Amino acid sequence: MTVNVGVIGVGMIGQDHIRRLTHVLSGARVSAVTDADLERAQSVADGLSGVTVHKTGQDLIEDPDVDAVVVASWGPTHEEFVLAGIAAGKQVFCEKPLATTREACERILDAEVAAGRRMVMVGFMRRYDEGYRAMKEALTAGAIGAPLIYYSGHRNPSVPPSVTTEGILVDTCVHDIDVSRWLLDSEVVSTQVFSPRRTSHAADVLQDPLLLMLTMSNDVIVNVEAAVNIAYGYDIRGEVLGETGTIELAESAKVVVKREGQFGGRVPADWRERFIRAYDVEFQEWLDAVAAGNSTGPSAWDGYAATLACDAATEAYRTGAPASVTMRDKPDLYLTGSGDAASVTGTD
Amino acid sequence: MTVNVGVIGVGMIGQDHIRRLTHVLSGARVSAVTDADLERAQSVADGLSGVTVHKTGQDLIEDPDVDAVVVASWGPTHEEFVLAGIAAGKQVFCEKPLATTREACERILDAEVAAGRRMVMVGFMRRYDEGYRAMKEALTAGAIGAPLIYYSGHRNPSVPPSVTTEGILVDTCVHDIDVSRWLLDSEVVSTQVFSPRRTSHAADVLQDPLLLMLTMSNDVIVNVEAAVNIAYGYDIRGEVLGETGTIELAESAKVVVKREGQFGGRVPADWRERFIRAYDVEFQEWLDAVAAGNSTGPSAWDGYAATLACDAATEAYRTGAPASVTMRDKPDLYLTGSGDAASVTGTD
Amino acid sequence: MTVNVGVIGVGMIGQDHIRRLTHVLSGARVSAVTDADLERAQSVADGLSGVTVHKTGQDLIEDPDVDAVVVASWGPTHEEFVLAGIAAGKQVFCEKPLATTREACERILDAEVAAGRRMVMVGFMRRYDEGYRAMKEALTAGAIGAPLIYYSGHRNPSVPPSVTTEGILVDTCVHDIDVSRWLLDSEVVSTQVFSPRRTSHAADVLQDPLLLMLTMSNDVIVNVEAAVNIAYGYDIRGEVLGETGTIELAESAKVVVKREGQFGGRVPADWRERFIRAYDVEFQEWLDAVAAGNSTGPSAWDGYAATLACDAATEAYRTGAPASVTMRDKPDLYLTGSGDAASVTGTD
Amino acid sequence: MTVNVGVIGVGMIGQDHIRRLTHVLSGARVSAVTDADLERAQSVADGLSGVTVHKTGQDLIEDPDVDAVVVASWGPTHEEFVLAGIAAGKQVFCEKPLATTREACERILDAEVAAGRRMVMVGFMRRYDEGYRAMKEALTAGAIGAPLIYYSGHRNPSVPPSVTTEGILVDTCVHDIDVSRWLLDSEVVSTQVFSPRRTSHAADVLQDPLLLMLTMSNDVIVNVEAAVNIAYGYDIRGEVLGETGTIELAESAKVVVKREGQFGGRVPADWRERFIRAYDVEFQEWLDAVAAGNSTGPSAWDGYAATLACDAATEAYRTGAPASVTMRDKPDLYLTGSGDAASVTGTD
Repeated sequence: MTVNVGVIGVGMIGQDHIRRLTHVLSGARVSAVTDADLERAQSVADGLSGVTVHKTGQDLIEDPDVDAVVVASWGPTHEEFVLAGIAAGKQVFCEKPLATTREACERILDAEVAAGRRMVMVGFMRRYDEGYRAMKEALTAGAIGAPLIYYSGHRNPSVPPSVTTEGILVDTCVHDIDVSRWLLDSEVVSTQVFSPRRTSHAADVLQDPLLLMLTMSNDVIVNVEAAVNIAYGYDIRGEVLGETGTIELAESAKVVVKREGQFGGRVPADWRERFIRAYDVEFQEWLDAVAAGNSTGPSAWDGYAATLACDAATEAYRTGAPASVTMRDKPDLYLTGSGDAASVTGTD
Repeated sequence: MTVNVGVIGVGMIGQDHIRRLTHVLSGARVSAVTDADLERAQSVADGLSGVTVHKTGQDLIEDPDVDAVVVASWGPTHEEFVLAGIAAGKQVFCEKPLATTREACERILDAEVAAGRRMVMVGFMRRYDEGYRAMKEALTAGAIGAPLIYYSGHRNPSVPPSVTTEGILVDTCVHDIDVSRWLLDSEVVSTQVFSPRRTSHAADVLQDPLLLMLTMSNDVIVNVEAAVNIAYGYDIRGEVLGETGTIELAESAKVVVKREGQFGGRVPADWRERFIRAYDVEFQEWLDAVAAGNSTGPSAWDGYAATLACDAATEAYRTGAPASVTMRDKPDLYLTGSGDAASVTGTD
Repeated sequence: MTVNVGVIGVGMIGQDHIRRLTHVLSGARVSAVTDADLERAQSVADGLSGVTVHKTGQDLIEDPDVDAVVVASWGPTHEEFVLAGIAAGKQVFCEKPLATTREACERILDAEVAAGRRMVMVGFMRRYDEGYRAMKEALTAGAIGAPLIYYSGHRNPSVPPSVTTEGILVDTCVHDIDVSRWLLDSEVVSTQVFSPRRTSHAADVLQDPLLLMLTMSNDVIVNVEAAVNIAYGYDIRGEVLGETGTIELAESAKVVVKREGQFGGRVPADWRERFIRAYDVEFQEWLDAVAAGNSTGPSAWDGYAATLACDAATEAYRTGAPASVTMRDKPDLYLTGSGDAASVTGTD
Repeated sequence: MTVNVGVIGVGMIGQDHIRRLTHVLSGARVSAVTDADLERAQSVADGLSGVTVHKTGQDLIEDPDVDAVVVASWGPTHEEFVLAGIAAGKQVFCEKPLATTREACERILDAEVAAGRRMVMVGFMRRYDEGYRAMKEALTAGAIGAPLIYYSGHRNPSVPPSVTTEGILVDTCVHDIDVSRWLLDSEVVSTQVFSPRRTSHAADVLQDPLLLMLTMSNDVIVNVEAAVNIAYGYDIRGEVLGETGTIELAESAKVVVKREGQFGGRVPADWRERFIRAYDVEFQEWLDAVAAGNSTGPSAWDGYAATLACDAATEAYRTGAPASVTMRDKPDLYLTGSGDAASVTGTD
């Protein structure tokens, strides 16, 4: 069975997903697109065949030739399209964030709970990376006892001048937050932000690097380091300290070269190089689930939890004091089944 | 465009390719199968949809619903099916060996040259592995000067008792031979085999490990080590010594675990784990070329060269003396174009 | 010239230094010993030749056959012996701590400043470790720009039940504090302690692991992790994040072994294995300086700064709030010359 | 007890040993020196104190103020001084080679056997390197089963134009030969030399790199690669392939630096950097043995075996054919005791 996918938002990330659905993965075709910029939507459609261009996301979602929806538009529009997808009974793959406010996220939870089944997957692709999966597998297998501390290093070669410190916490650290929740099988209960010496390579207004400390519901402390003008490469670090050992993400270089007095290997240049496979696997698992009539992956609950933790981090940065996270009770819908963090692990 | 693929031979490797064509890659469907064991062919077809079972490979090749052919049957049958594919004007993906004798390979070369275009790709999947590609890329970029020595370590955890020493040279070392030719952009001119102390874990008749030394047309010496009952894992090693440096395949572990007095990482358990991505990439590139009306990848000439080098290695082992390789002149068809080793590199 | 060394305190560490002075290093002999337990002192002397046993440290220091003094007695006695050494005009090698209170350290500073020359070296041996020296050398050479964050991991396989959380901060983290000051060429201005999930392998009263955060005078943040029942080995980690790169202590394994599905190397079993060479180098540099009539190494100022930072860390742990460090102005004596951190680097 | 050492030959290596005996190690002093260039001997003595300059090696050996002798003169003079040392009943540390011909070596064996005790240690310092010791320890502990193949890579950044291909075999590969004998606890029975493509960085007459294949008495094959103008560093590689695993020398970098798109570490610049500690340990063990009235380390038999294997390698290179090694029966003196390879291991 071929899944007919409608894509809302055909900017950089949307176009990359279209390429993936069309030329890389199995079992899908792009049947419809839309975008705030309709000319851009038309131009993308012109490069494919058999693709309908819709004027609005709502129209696209209602198109009977659309089996499932990818939401890759601007963050503030996510709520509307996700809710429409749920209302139409169609599976939705929503790029992060699920929504930009607590209230919006809760409306999505309410809608999905009312529908009685999971229909939303949030694009936290790190869960599909081989490194993180091997880390979770070893941790779950008990290789190092219970986790106690987790170090999550997020290093970007550079960011545009438009990026703000809040942006680092919300757009960058959100991945560290999600992967910490998933890896440690626990929720963020409080956050604190520390400001080390600033790099001279960042814009004046930017606190770069920054340290975000998360206290988890199981008392594990997570140390997130975000350094977004580090120049040397896109370097994603992770190490769990357990009771009797550690698990650390390995370097990803394929060859080691010796020359000029050094041995050395490549550090990825950007997020595409580092996570291209994770995106492929994430989407293939989603397509396979959709084709089988199931849901999978990070749920609306995960999107909600991430948004709340980012809100707390932003508050902690503004106030200089710890900020706690208050979540509603977890609906039964998210306790078991394919959307639950534990079951994702179980399928590794 | 969807490429309709007919698969001849649905044993372990054939079924794996069917899985790949059906569930992993983009742009293909399996439209027809056949096998020496027709019940097995029917059983495989029953698990798919819209697949015709043919009584013979010839029938399958002539089926108008077959755009391109995968030959995954027993080695001695390859010649017949490849020649039939060429005669039918259809692209053929042939698992190694291209054919089992010099004469058979030359008949294929003759047929393809007479047809005036490349239609055969031989399944030397290492050329599609990220490690080897990074190695060739660094070598071609001049990172270490001209290559002088190449070490190629081929370590299998174990082999069935049926495997013979000649089998190691022909079925195992053939991959080291092909990757050496490709990496070094040169031909094997002579071979020599050395017999170190035997492991107590091998069958009595087996020379395991063995060392196969290749002298290449550019005077580079290649040291192939085959150890096929090494127990600890499936470990493929490669190191080029150049004039001013070395390039070595890196370890592939995704995480490093520290416990019980050691740091350590995983060695692949088998060839599937090690090369699964290379098989995917190899097939996707073939499908993309077929869809575009082109050919790509290791050519019939590469298959011919590998068969001759394996023949020489077998002779060297039998006689205990160096055995040289005598090839016909390289037809123009194989000097340029998508099947040429150099151009494969060019697309990395 | 042979330096005649008197050793005060012949417990485990004192005996190890006697072994080092007698059997490993060049240019020294042990000429006198004393200990609170005189029988132990006699027993140690009996194993050597030409060694006088003194009833008190004061007697030993005044012995004309003692050129220089090693203080390896119980911490609270250090002040008395260091002051006596200064008064006698003899070079003193004092194991950490320099003294156990701010006031005691300041009396030592006063005495040394009054004497007008440096006579005290404190035994912070990490500055003599090849790894830390290579790290400081690369940092000073500008390999990664200015330092921004430093991670210092201190992992012990286990500690006796007598160890307290304050003991971890004062006896364990003191090394991380000294090496941070030296590496970053700056002082600790405030400290904060965080308590992650406790390991089930520690005594009930112990906060293990703990995180000690230091803010340095140049705004660098240091994250010290102390995990003292980590079981897997004695693992000292260090990573500087700079503006354009990182420097990390490498693994120290001498061989990599592949077996049973893993590649791996040894983690040191204890501090002796990890730092035995650093102790040798530290003492040889001290002996060479003494023989040349000079002083070298970590100074009384370094000992004072470390004691204050440990005091602040202890307070931060007790109160749960940040605790700042207030130091007196640095006397000119410690601004330049062989005792200055910068000049130690300069001789690497 | 202080060992009074007389040093014959005060060129680069002799002076380095004098520095070591005087400023680094414990329990020794240099009491006498001599050299073919007496002015140089006098100049070296002037930099020390209490050192007698002798006109000949014979005079030095007979000096009652000389307890033990270091022979660091030109190779062809070794025999004379070693024999004189034996005749004088003094322990001799002889830099490699023991002697330059089979006959000379056999005269030394005869003299030592007649004396009834071991008095000669040959300076094969690799046996004292931590990497090789860890390799032998793991091998002896059975970590990988019986050894089957050993790879020994010997890479020098460059050599002077005076070096010949025979020189590479005799002066460079001799270390690989000795360490192979020691590691594998077996003798070289035959040798073969292969000539890969030559580097453009070597003198025209030089076969660089070259491959020296050794067949050992236990059927293990040793592959020695010598590349003496490799530019990138002084890189000594070693890997044992055993029945169930491998042991490989680790990289020796103390820190890993990430910058400019790469992670990397230092390769040693020259043999001093790589083996300085091995030389120290080697000499300290010799001094300790001498002080205790014992002998230790690589014996005259080891020196004899190495010379024969180098002779065979040279013949193999000249003739292009395998050359075998014929040794006399091993005298009982070398079967056990401190000079035996096995016992050296036993003290690791």
